[in-house]
Amino acid sequence: MSLGVVVVGAGYWGPNLIRNFMKSDDWHLRAVCDANVERAEGVIGKYSTVRAVQSFEEILDDDAVDAVAIATPAGTHFDLARSALEAGKHVLIEKPIAATVAEAEKLVDIADANGLTLMCDHTFCYTPAVQKIRELIQSGELGDIQYIDSVRINLGLIQPDIDVIWDLAPHDLSILDAILPADNRPSAVSAFGVDPVGAGRACVAYLNLPLAGGGIAHTHVNWLSPVKIRTMVIGGSRKMIVWDDMSTTQRISLYDKGVDLSAAMDREQRSATLISYRLGEMVAPALTEREALGNMVTEFAESIRDKRAPLTDGRAGLRVVQTLHAASRSLETNGSLISLEGTS
Amino acid sequence: MSLGVVVVGAGYWGPNLIRNFMKSDDWHLRAVCDANVERAEGVIGKYSTVRAVQSFEEILDDDAVDAVAIATPAGTHFDLARSALEAGKHVLIEKPIAATVAEAEKLVDIADANGLTLMCDHTFCYTPAVQKIRELIQSGELGDIQYIDSVRINLGLIQPDIDVIWDLAPHDLSILDAILPADNRPSAVSAFGVDPVGAGRACVAYLNLPLAGGGIAHTHVNWLSPVKIRTMVIGGSRKMIVWDDMSTTQRISLYDKGVDLSAAMDREQRSATLISYRLGEMVAPALTEREALGNMVTEFAESIRDKRAPLTDGRAGLRVVQTLHAASRSLETNGSLISLEGTS
Amino acid sequence: MSLGVVVVGAGYWGPNLIRNFMKSDDWHLRAVCDANVERAEGVIGKYSTVRAVQSFEEILDDDAVDAVAIATPAGTHFDLARSALEAGKHVLIEKPIAATVAEAEKLVDIADANGLTLMCDHTFCYTPAVQKIRELIQSGELGDIQYIDSVRINLGLIQPDIDVIWDLAPHDLSILDAILPADNRPSAVSAFGVDPVGAGRACVAYLNLPLAGGGIAHTHVNWLSPVKIRTMVIGGSRKMIVWDDMSTTQRISLYDKGVDLSAAMDREQRSATLISYRLGEMVAPALTEREALGNMVTEFAESIRDKRAPLTDGRAGLRVVQTLHAASRSLETNGSLISLEGTS
Amino acid sequence: MSLGVVVVGAGYWGPNLIRNFMKSDDWHLRAVCDANVERAEGVIGKYSTVRAVQSFEEILDDDAVDAVAIATPAGTHFDLARSALEAGKHVLIEKPIAATVAEAEKLVDIADANGLTLMCDHTFCYTPAVQKIRELIQSGELGDIQYIDSVRINLGLIQPDIDVIWDLAPHDLSILDAILPADNRPSAVSAFGVDPVGAGRACVAYLNLPLAGGGIAHTHVNWLSPVKIRTMVIGGSRKMIVWDDMSTTQRISLYDKGVDLSAAMDREQRSATLISYRLGEMVAPALTEREALGNMVTEFAESIRDKRAPLTDGRAGLRVVQTLHAASRSLETNGSLISLEGTS
Repeated sequence: MSLGVVVVGAGYWGPNLIRNFMKSDDWHLRAVCDANVERAEGVIGKYSTVRAVQSFEEILDDDAVDAVAIATPAGTHFDLARSALEAGKHVLIEKPIAATVAEAEKLVDIADANGLTLMCDHTFCYTPAVQKIRELIQSGELGDIQYIDSVRINLGLIQPDIDVIWDLAPHDLSILDAILPADNRPSAVSAFGVDPVGAGRACVAYLNLPLAGGGIAHTHVNWLSPVKIRTMVIGGSRKMIVWDDMSTTQRISLYDKGVDLSAAMDREQRSATLISYRLGEMVAPALTEREALGNMVTEFAESIRDKRAPLTDGRAGLRVVQTLHAASRSLETNGSLISLEGTS
Repeated sequence: MSLGVVVVGAGYWGPNLIRNFMKSDDWHLRAVCDANVERAEGVIGKYSTVRAVQSFEEILDDDAVDAVAIATPAGTHFDLARSALEAGKHVLIEKPIAATVAEAEKLVDIADANGLTLMCDHTFCYTPAVQKIRELIQSGELGDIQYIDSVRINLGLIQPDIDVIWDLAPHDLSILDAILPADNRPSAVSAFGVDPVGAGRACVAYLNLPLAGGGIAHTHVNWLSPVKIRTMVIGGSRKMIVWDDMSTTQRISLYDKGVDLSAAMDREQRSATLISYRLGEMVAPALTEREALGNMVTEFAESIRDKRAPLTDGRAGLRVVQTLHAASRSLETNGSLISLEGTS
Repeated sequence: MSLGVVVVGAGYWGPNLIRNFMKSDDWHLRAVCDANVERAEGVIGKYSTVRAVQSFEEILDDDAVDAVAIATPAGTHFDLARSALEAGKHVLIEKPIAATVAEAEKLVDIADANGLTLMCDHTFCYTPAVQKIRELIQSGELGDIQYIDSVRINLGLIQPDIDVIWDLAPHDLSILDAILPADNRPSAVSAFGVDPVGAGRACVAYLNLPLAGGGIAHTHVNWLSPVKIRTMVIGGSRKMIVWDDMSTTQRISLYDKGVDLSAAMDREQRSATLISYRLGEMVAPALTEREALGNMVTEFAESIRDKRAPLTDGRAGLRVVQTLHAASRSLETNGSLISLEGTS
Repeated sequence: MSLGVVVVGAGYWGPNLIRNFMKSDDWHLRAVCDANVERAEGVIGKYSTVRAVQSFEEILDDDAVDAVAIATPAGTHFDLARSALEAGKHVLIEKPIAATVAEAEKLVDIADANGLTLMCDHTFCYTPAVQKIRELIQSGELGDIQYIDSVRINLGLIQPDIDVIWDLAPHDLSILDAILPADNRPSAVSAFGVDPVGAGRACVAYLNLPLAGGGIAHTHVNWLSPVKIRTMVIGGSRKMIVWDDMSTTQRISLYDKGVDLSAAMDREQRSATLISYRLGEMVAPALTEREALGNMVTEFAESIRDKRAPLTDGRAGLRVVQTLHAASRSLETNGSLISLEGTS
């Protein structure tokens, strides 16, 4: 028995959600809702039986609608999601889950109080690559995490309302949230950024994120790069990963490489201070090629049916928003290190 | 008429200098000097007529020696270089030019006072790639520099006496020094680093370097990466560069790409906020394939003959050391931003 | 005013045609026809207003249907296309246009006689890459064509009815047909192939195709490769092209490289026989990113409206089938060189 | 106790041999011999104790010379090698071992008769990559060899005396000879080539080499390519290899990929004829980074000491020459398939 869903927002991301809900046997796409109903109609296309709806209230009153998927600008997330939750609908929200920490917390509380699923569309967490990385870290195969270095740059869209950190870093932060154990998440954040084109907001930024366990995460987000790079290098005490998301053939490379420190302390001769390496083989595991959004809508359906938290639940969305706000504060204060202690 | 030179220090880097001085018609390699004379002999090899010498003083007394090239540990640079300068020899020193700012300043002063060439072996500045980048920036072809992002990582040697910043960042800092105009150099530095293997010093580090002109430079240096990456992305208001030093075929890519900001301000529709791009062609200029060290020893000879400052003179070496020290201070204070104002 | 079209065949390729006809304003997709009507229904999906039709005759009788697009197995192309042409419909056919040369010739004749458009879906000819290459060759920018080397390999589908040459080489042959001037097409073909898995047909094959102008084309087609490679290297007397269709960032590289022969004839010293190179820059032109099939359905519509031959008309389809048959004859006779003289 | 060696020929390749003999503890480089003694002196350089010698006879008379390494043009190999063998010297010869099959056979016979080592410098056979491939094939890990596809192209030297097949294909042929078992070597050869620049000899060529075991080897050799490619793809029934010799990081990739044929025979639906793949992981084994020529001179010394045939003995050199001559005959006869049966 499929669940009824309405996608709210027919802008940039909505069509991807629409396509994946339509492909899924778990779901019945009941309508596409947009205040600009012509935009909804344009997205649906001329050969479709799906309805375009202007009124959000009409949807909330429809018993065939079990869930709503909100893909509108971030500033509208809170009101839409609260209304939907209060109307008894499960809710999926585009990242970031809300514009403020207080709003995000409130949504988590309302969902809890009503026993409803609140999920954040942290799409990357549903890619086969991230799921493999999560498995490699959480199984201990990587050993202790030494550092996670992420680069997410391209000649991108200068957003009219948010800076490059709020635009791109949610991907990195949500991935870190999904792959790291709860006791090794970022404990603080420092942000540097520049606006070299006069856009009124940072277009290039760097985040340093010391991890609770002693390592460090770092991300470079950039709207002004001539090339598109999407790489994450993860150093572990046992193995190391390079994830190149632009590769069509070898996304994950798992290296049996590392450092044997005992040999590194000879101070006699500079030429003898080469540390002893582990320089073993590299393995590129076979990954399934399923589309991340397909996995995501499945997880949304299953978490509703199983009455369990989805992988990227409201709390994960909240943690990402908390870190984004701390990064904004750091950005305004010359990169001062802002603690994330006390965040959920 | 060739100049006489002695290479001092037959450790890791010395053999490269020896090989290049031997190949050069500008130079006559008079000897290799090392306190451990057997190491010098080993480097020279069994088929060579070059002398191995233990005594540094012997060299200073030799009138056939016009210059010395110092490739010993950083802590010994000052004493050796001062003695050589005071003996009337021109001096080339491995990076970093000295262990402290005061020492570096003193060497600059002594060389000036004696009318001798003091040069720092910032090797990368003599690669065809850096020389092309310098030309593209200084001719204005790139326009205003928006950001310079450098990645210099590999499974490297954990040095017994210096951290990863002092080991690897001199390359980035010396390149920045060479390619940027004097009025757009880094004005401050913030450093974050971690020591996840218990080496007693940072093995992974990130430097943020705001530029005087409003842009930012950033470098990631890392001894614990499973892969070797040597890339620099440079955003300019007119064109952009990707330099991949590991590529055997396409080191420099020059992109006619950029952002037209006027179009980016439409707030009506998210799908309309895509900025207008310049998405022109990419050109990979033909580079000469001459070895950097060959260019470097030529520059050393020519600057002596022409009685002019070499491209990477003592002052450039001093600026690099000043930045390294500021980075060390930042590292100890949670990444606080340390001003470089007032540095030469 | 859009044209009515029916896609016949809901197998492997049909859905791509369906999707592109639906996206095009030039076309109105009237139905999807498949003898297995459930397969057609499955492809259309549960949210669509498009009809699934079992009867091909029903389509031919429908005046709202201006054209049919045939994506059925090659053995059925002739009967379906002839019926459609005789019913006054324009026809698009998947490659190869027909199973035999005689059938292909007949289709060309019927279409001519009825004044209808007969087009072969040589999809690659509508990629921005091939269109750029065509322009570079036909404008003379490449100079004389020295060789065209194509590699088209991956771990592919071992077809039940055709060998790897008939499966993959039509892409190469149709591209050659589109980019080369009429007086420099392949004049003969030699084919070698093996069936190392006992499939009953060649799974790995090589085609040598001497060009009328003195150069050579060559293609490697292979179902048993662990990696997917889609490259074409084109040597011209003035410039050279590398087309890497798997690259997401740099599909076409245009090299200002070549040989200056005058210098190559010194016989005195082996070390002096290095020819003089032109080793100029490489340019990667900006390509549009439009989907090839979108361009193809547009060309189909425009050629109908303008009553002109499309780029990949029936005669192009016929030439490809002629070459495929000659290759089959060569394959059976140890690679003997089969002339293509006298082919249209 | 090291062996005395003289390198004969100070042209293109000689300096590489000289450098490696000098680095080896197995060898004592006694002299460099060249009819043009100034060229020998230039190669030796101004800091060396190695002698330059003009007279080949003088070398043959020198008892301190155990072996000669011949790096002169191919046409001179036979006379020099015969003289050396008759003077009791072990002989290493650049590829090809001789200009004709008869000469090569004679050298093999003379060496046998005199109990001397005759070795051909098939350098690639001593790379860590080829040695790993050899091990993977000969251990059975790859299973049956289905095909070996080699590409060896670049903007190269148009030789004054030999065509591109004789210049570049010896590398491929010697590699095949080293990695394939004796009962699965090429059984015939067909060659196509063109001379699009009027050089008087083929500059682009393709060789088809059916293997005795039913597979096929193929090589593309080309002096007119804008890019340098050195790849070999090897299909095996169990595993498959891609060797990219231009990669600085991942030369050998071993794929657990293949075809399960039982599933491939469903004729009902085209969409069901996708064969079942083995799509397992890829492993890039750690390779040692020792220079091939270093391994080669070691093998030369060890084979002399152990009185055993070296990996690339005179017979291997002979087989390569036999195949080259058969390729030349094929080239003259439109690619006719020339048998290699009866070759040693």
